[in-house]
Amino acid sequence: MQPEGILETVLYAPDLATTEAFYSDVLGLVPFQKQPDRQLFYRCGNQVLLMFNAEATRHAPKPGALPVPPHGMTGEGHVCFRASAVEIASWKAHLEAKGVAVESDFVWPSGGRSIYFRDPAGNCLEFAEPKIWGLA
Amino acid sequence: MQPEGILETVLYAPDLATTEAFYSDVLGLVPFQKQPDRQLFYRCGNQVLLMFNAEATRHAPKPGALPVPPHGMTGEGHVCFRASAVEIASWKAHLEAKGVAVESDFVWPSGGRSIYFRDPAGNCLEFAEPKIWGLA
Repeated sequence: MQPEGILETVLYAPDLATTEAFYSDVLGLVPFQKQPDRQLFYRCGNQVLLMFNAEATRHAPKPGALPVPPHGMTGEGHVCFRASAVEIASWKAHLEAKGVAVESDFVWPSGGRSIYFRDPAGNCLEFAEPKIWGLA
Repeated sequence: MQPEGILETVLYAPDLATTEAFYSDVLGLVPFQKQPDRQLFYRCGNQVLLMFNAEATRHAPKPGALPVPPHGMTGEGHVCFRASAVEIASWKAHLEAKGVAVESDFVWPSGGRSIYFRDPAGNCLEFAEPKIWGLA
């Protein structure tokens, strides 16, 4: 037995209002569900990207609530979005037009380009060609 | 512009040897690439699951290395794997046979089952039906 795919990818951010503004303005992502002090949920391809305030998710659920286990991290997380070479060039121009610094931009030795930038919480976001992992 | 999908989902674990044994024995995942003190890389469907030791990834790359930006989190992260209802029943039996506690098991009010358990680093792992997010 082996998991067939990932359904939920998670990042954490302490200030969800600032985070929501950034993801909407820069990445074009609008939450389909949100709780202002706890979570922002985004659709992304065949899965979801969940953004949590760890201060809210670290605690056991209240009596009567669904028994969702606690979790929560601090620091600078990392997520990579898939993009073609053409799309990466467009994203780089778009980020620069939005005043978002591109922290790194390089081609991997085995082929495929990655660009990196930060969200307001310091999470390290990346666009990369799936071929860097041998994926289509 | 909007990201078309997620290519890399990331978790952190301070003890990668223990982590590798758990993911192999319990989840059937074998890393296609690893650096014992830094990273374990897994394929999972159309993306990769990257497991990092944050102590190693928090630092800027050394001179001459690829300019991969630093990142790293501490605490208990969360990832959810996709599974059908039949597969979730099998995973629950499998986890129990492996002595892994199922921390929570419930059906969401709008339909779809989730089961939750922990990896050795305390990361909150989940199997859920994609329909909990309206996905196929």
